Amino acid sequence: MTNLHQLTVTQASALIADRSLSPVSLMEALLTRADALEPALHVWVTLDPDAALEGARRSERELESGKSRGPLHGIPIALKDIYNTKGVLTTACSPIYADYVPDHDAHSVALLRRAGTVIMGKAVTTQFASGDPSPTRNPWNTAHTPGGSSSGSAAGVAARIFPAAMGSQTGGSILRPASYNGVVGLKPTYGRVSKHGVFPLAWSLDTVGPITRSVEDAAIVLDALAGHDPKDPSSSTRPVGNYRRAAAGNARPPRVGYVSQFFDANSDDETRAHTRAALERLAESDADVVDFTTVADFEELAAAHSIIIAVEAAGIHEADFSVRPDDFGPRIRASIERGHLTPAVAYVRAQRTREKFRRAILHDMADVDVLLTPSTPAPAPRDLTTTGDMIFQSPWTTCGFPAVTLPSGLAANGLPLGVQLIAAPFAEERLLSAAAWCERILAFHAAPPVTI
Amino acid sequence: MTNLHQLTVTQASALIADRSLSPVSLMEALLTRADALEPALHVWVTLDPDAALEGARRSERELESGKSRGPLHGIPIALKDIYNTKGVLTTACSPIYADYVPDHDAHSVALLRRAGTVIMGKAVTTQFASGDPSPTRNPWNTAHTPGGSSSGSAAGVAARIFPAAMGSQTGGSILRPASYNGVVGLKPTYGRVSKHGVFPLAWSLDTVGPITRSVEDAAIVLDALAGHDPKDPSSSTRPVGNYRRAAAGNARPPRVGYVSQFFDANSDDETRAHTRAALERLAESDADVVDFTTVADFEELAAAHSIIIAVEAAGIHEADFSVRPDDFGPRIRASIERGHLTPAVAYVRAQRTREKFRRAILHDMADVDVLLTPSTPAPAPRDLTTTGDMIFQSPWTTCGFPAVTLPSGLAANGLPLGVQLIAAPFAEERLLSAAAWCERILAFHAAPPVTI
Repeated sequence: MTNLHQLTVTQASALIADRSLSPVSLMEALLTRADALEPALHVWVTLDPDAALEGARRSERELESGKSRGPLHGIPIALKDIYNTKGVLTTACSPIYADYVPDHDAHSVALLRRAGTVIMGKAVTTQFASGDPSPTRNPWNTAHTPGGSSSGSAAGVAARIFPAAMGSQTGGSILRPASYNGVVGLKPTYGRVSKHGVFPLAWSLDTVGPITRSVEDAAIVLDALAGHDPKDPSSSTRPVGNYRRAAAGNARPPRVGYVSQFFDANSDDETRAHTRAALERLAESDADVVDFTTVADFEELAAAHSIIIAVEAAGIHEADFSVRPDDFGPRIRASIERGHLTPAVAYVRAQRTREKFRRAILHDMADVDVLLTPSTPAPAPRDLTTTGDMIFQSPWTTCGFPAVTLPSGLAANGLPLGVQLIAAPFAEERLLSAAAWCERILAFHAAPPVTI
Repeated sequence: MTNLHQLTVTQASALIADRSLSPVSLMEALLTRADALEPALHVWVTLDPDAALEGARRSERELESGKSRGPLHGIPIALKDIYNTKGVLTTACSPIYADYVPDHDAHSVALLRRAGTVIMGKAVTTQFASGDPSPTRNPWNTAHTPGGSSSGSAAGVAARIFPAAMGSQTGGSILRPASYNGVVGLKPTYGRVSKHGVFPLAWSLDTVGPITRSVEDAAIVLDALAGHDPKDPSSSTRPVGNYRRAAAGNARPPRVGYVSQFFDANSDDETRAHTRAALERLAESDADVVDFTTVADFEELAAAHSIIIAVEAAGIHEADFSVRPDDFGPRIRASIERGHLTPAVAYVRAQRTREKFRRAILHDMADVDVLLTPSTPAPAPRDLTTTGDMIFQSPWTTCGFPAVTLPSGLAANGLPLGVQLIAAPFAEERLLSAAAWCERILAFHAAPPVTI
């Protein structure tokens, strides 16, 4: 079997299930590719081939003894290096945690293991999942940023080094890098997936979720992760859905609200035209596309988001920052300093602004299945001093709404463009069903021009 | 029928159900009593006898036409004057809202109406449910504070002016006045009952709940109120229980954890001895009483609570306070000023302290049904310049845990003493079952020496 690295989760899963693919062969192929691409892409913080292979062998032995853990059995997955992994270095790409080896797995990591995934290694994050660029490069063009903060996760999925990775989003850190790298990123509803054991950036915003190469793949990972965890105070007790069924089912064309307000004015010409063309293709296939208007104020929300993240990050890093301020990157440092100068009443007002926005949007989106926006204002900038702009993702993170990005085409410069779909809280089934339908219509199949 | 004013909710309900008591007669009896006691007790902000009687007549007409709304049908209830009532003045006892007539009912008020209660009137609160004393007097001795902030609600239930009232608790504002007045107060889990349409004091703490003269009565009111309300962002989607059944059932003797830490040191000698004697009586009836110890730090939590309430109140009152600072009472004003001087990181740290405490207590209380403490450090002070000390209630409000106070005896000065029971979040059935069992053993039946 050739080109094992090109298999999606769904494809590999089917082959593993009928015993025509060995988890060990799959891992071997991916490790070879990882090794070859690492000098150009800098995806990894920690990659221990022996441990990854041993995991694959354990997985294979289980299959041989007749035990299958389901659709993720034997599937390699990479973890952003803010997920605690028992006995394995977890650095958050900070010099302060350069030697930190957790004594436990993050709850989500434990769930992924239970579901049968094989942890391949720990992928590069920007420092503390904030805005300072990481060494990772965009596989579509290494002069362009891969985005952040889930840089290694997104670049590695795009470069076919692994079929799935875990990221996290506090502003736009799953969907933006996923879009910049031409892959699928899913941010579930705030509270849908436990973030226990994941290094926090801002408690009231942090959300963990997968990056994959198909909507169904993202749904399969969500099936493994969704549910209540009493160890995470923000974890919801709402019943979980059957996300893969929602993504793989025979979906009807969705009713899509196109958000022109704010997003049009902040997109470049090419992105705006591309998004409108994508909408036309959806409408031609009988999606019901309507123009979405709302009284909610996106600019005010962005200000609130910036205050919330600055204050909460300042609180989280208070002890480390008081003794080792110089070990923080300039961008997160500036945010922490802003947080320390913010009065509590401003923070509380920001939280109220958030709640007001959330209610307004929720009310106004009641008659559509999903909202649609471009995923980013422009393709990944040709600028390695930035991870790009989060303003198209942060409104939905701030609201806690679930969102997904789909690759929808390539810009003239060869970098990917994407569309973002958003649904109401805990409506992941509706979101994934609509996303799978749109994915079929938009039919993006390009891969980055990396060769080994 | 004489002495209608002495009927509890449960008693009146049974009589109304078998048509041996008319809601109109009951209301007439209570209005007569209300009128006679008002000059001494100052329970009311708004009492419109015609409207109350018209409500009772509507209730009676429904019964005559064969419609019963259940155990609260025809039961008079008073509302703390921070509950919005459509078309009826809702002042929060602030000069700023002296003329405010809401155009809607608070969600809880709508639920109470739907359950058949007859709104008798609006009871005195301290200004904005904060710490400035109200004109209400304690019916056990009018030289003593009735406590606050639900002053009118507690004094009126104790003085047999109404069998039930709604209060709210942000520090200790349901349980403290209930205990000072020798009645039952229930603070449900944070998020169990919608607070939509109730004037806020501090969003992350505010909880609404009933004051009654029996545990079963409180449970009946909770049955009407518990449930999710999408209009309240803090409202929980957790399934509700059958609270009356829990309170009225044949409960086994509970396993009670006595919290000596912090509470012993902060109680006066009489309260401490009284509480230990009450525990002995429970143990003699086969309650399993154990000494509860925890690593949680009550002093640190009290500091966190004070910061949270100051900051959130400052945020809530920001607009009014900027233009009419002199219309705020000295205590709430001082709290707002403190809030304005608090850095956001201190607020966030206070929220983390709260969460750390909550987890520690929750872990440590896993093997008891309920915790027990004295309800207050001492009986109601002979001091009308204070509403008393909230330190025995505020830990549980800060955690969001449900708590109930039961009257358990009289101090040497004739003022009531009470015990407070606390359970884990959303364990109201267990709490009410244990409380009803303790109520039977403690058998407090005294009434305040008010005469008309």
